[in-house]
Amino acid sequence: MREFAVLERIFEGNAGLPADVVVPPGDDMAAIRIGAGAASTPVCVLAATDSVIEGRHTPMGIDPFVIGRKAVLRNISDVAAMGNARPIATLAAVVLPAGMDEHAVWRLYEGLRETAEAWSAPLVGGDISSSESPSRKGGEDGRPPIIAMVTVLAVPVDPSHPVVLRSNARPGDRVFVTGTIGSGWDRTTGLGRHLDFTPRLAVGQQLARMLGPSLGAMIDISDGLGRDLGHIARRSGVRIEIDPARVPTDARGHGAPDDTQARLEAMSLGEDYELAFTVRADAADGVPSIIDGVPVTEIGRVLSGPASAVARSGEATFDLTSRGFEHGGGGVAR
Amino acid sequence: MREFAVLERIFEGNAGLPADVVVPPGDDMAAIRIGAGAASTPVCVLAATDSVIEGRHTPMGIDPFVIGRKAVLRNISDVAAMGNARPIATLAAVVLPAGMDEHAVWRLYEGLRETAEAWSAPLVGGDISSSESPSRKGGEDGRPPIIAMVTVLAVPVDPSHPVVLRSNARPGDRVFVTGTIGSGWDRTTGLGRHLDFTPRLAVGQQLARMLGPSLGAMIDISDGLGRDLGHIARRSGVRIEIDPARVPTDARGHGAPDDTQARLEAMSLGEDYELAFTVRADAADGVPSIIDGVPVTEIGRVLSGPASAVARSGEATFDLTSRGFEHGGGGVAR
Repeated sequence: MREFAVLERIFEGNAGLPADVVVPPGDDMAAIRIGAGAASTPVCVLAATDSVIEGRHTPMGIDPFVIGRKAVLRNISDVAAMGNARPIATLAAVVLPAGMDEHAVWRLYEGLRETAEAWSAPLVGGDISSSESPSRKGGEDGRPPIIAMVTVLAVPVDPSHPVVLRSNARPGDRVFVTGTIGSGWDRTTGLGRHLDFTPRLAVGQQLARMLGPSLGAMIDISDGLGRDLGHIARRSGVRIEIDPARVPTDARGHGAPDDTQARLEAMSLGEDYELAFTVRADAADGVPSIIDGVPVTEIGRVLSGPASAVARSGEATFDLTSRGFEHGGGGVAR
Repeated sequence: MREFAVLERIFEGNAGLPADVVVPPGDDMAAIRIGAGAASTPVCVLAATDSVIEGRHTPMGIDPFVIGRKAVLRNISDVAAMGNARPIATLAAVVLPAGMDEHAVWRLYEGLRETAEAWSAPLVGGDISSSESPSRKGGEDGRPPIIAMVTVLAVPVDPSHPVVLRSNARPGDRVFVTGTIGSGWDRTTGLGRHLDFTPRLAVGQQLARMLGPSLGAMIDISDGLGRDLGHIARRSGVRIEIDPARVPTDARGHGAPDDTQARLEAMSLGEDYELAFTVRADAADGVPSIIDGVPVTEIGRVLSGPASAVARSGEATFDLTSRGFEHGGGGVAR
């Protein structure tokens, strides 16, 4: 799933963008100014796109409703990460195995439509293609996977305030995370919360409203807490240090607070769809421990230094941005 | 490619849409109101999504640049069909065969990015996934197809005027088409203009500006002139009658004006990416015969009656909305 992770950066290398692109590629969503409203407040639209491929992001052969639902939820989670944003519409392009039965198509569509409506982002456009090329007859299970690509559009909740960017962490900030980490995805079964989760939209919006400019950077956790903190670190040009003992893991399987290896593994799994964010030090004590019923936990701090995200346990540090929990080059100090 | 054509209508069946969805699913683009600008003019964003699948919409094994380019061009063609619209941004989700070489990935990306920039719709977001599921090893040619799904965002050129809808044809209108029909796609080789065409964006914009409210319905021709006129007929609740002898075909392969079968075939092929539109009778004489270097040809008229699109040659009529050029049920009169 991460084979092309490095290549994803090509989407960030879009030089020479017009001034109307106020948030360029590389954040959870891009933002484009499309006009001026009352009192010259810019009117912006936010957009992001994300796919779900059966057999990679869900088990093969699952109810297609689940594929459609997850494709929408992943995108709503991107809206949540912008803080001051609410979804307004979705579009879906789906690729179906040739000969797929009509009931399954409807289930996919219902998963898309019902979830989109539940999140106030009605499905306003779509495209359906069939995926079997004449020279390919599918593999062992006889058919190619169902693919659902969803684009979500959003607008700022408060147009006079900015959205929350990955690039806005500063040395001195404290680092928080919502919910629990490492239990989104069961590596053995492919099942887990990632198939039906609650995007932290209300939490993100409340953080933005409550903290205003004291809210630093924010991201939704899809690649794994470690790698996603790495995205914030890289875009903000800061060092992020996490105390693994404070990372809120599900007790099941991720050991005691002093089991650093278990904690590092939890941070590497991904598919949590929680929010990680930083808060200016002078406002950090005001962050509630529960927002909208979701626990919020302080897990570390932002330092100056070369862009990096590490876990520090006593004198040992572990690079969080490399795959899994290898000790990355330069990431281990004594 | 049309296997799910009927099911595409599910995307139109989205009841209970909020009032902000000012153009609902079923047109070339949807439109959503996202605020109010100066003098309370609504600020709208338009959005559409379309895919290109290697082996279906392009030959297998083609330079991936062509796949990316076509995926953007198809979407720009949808913007053209809205008349009073200009593209502002694109997002792309691509699915790549596992193990695809990096140069090919770059070619795909360059096709997307360069084309998007050339049409002033910079690529602002993207997602890359790999397509091989563990249980599938591809087919005869050893790999699954490259898939590029693009979403385009647009805004009205003139926010105080409406966009042009498929549902706005009225009895009495006259029917026009740009360019030539039937030569977009070579059935034998899979090659043709559909791989590198000029979306009729400038033509659509000029028609909207020039004709104002006298411009009726408009659509871009992707499914075939006949079927696409059928979309206008169905959404407008009108009967459209075409004179096949007037349909501008490429001389190559589509015969003399009196070769009705050849003309019907040309109208059924699709992938023309021209515009078909209707104009109120009192303004129709003012439609130029060339706009922006592109020929514009009058081919028929709009009548009242049950929704249908037919070619009339003497006393015989041929249903244009059925697949190919069979004589559809009820479409043949004496």
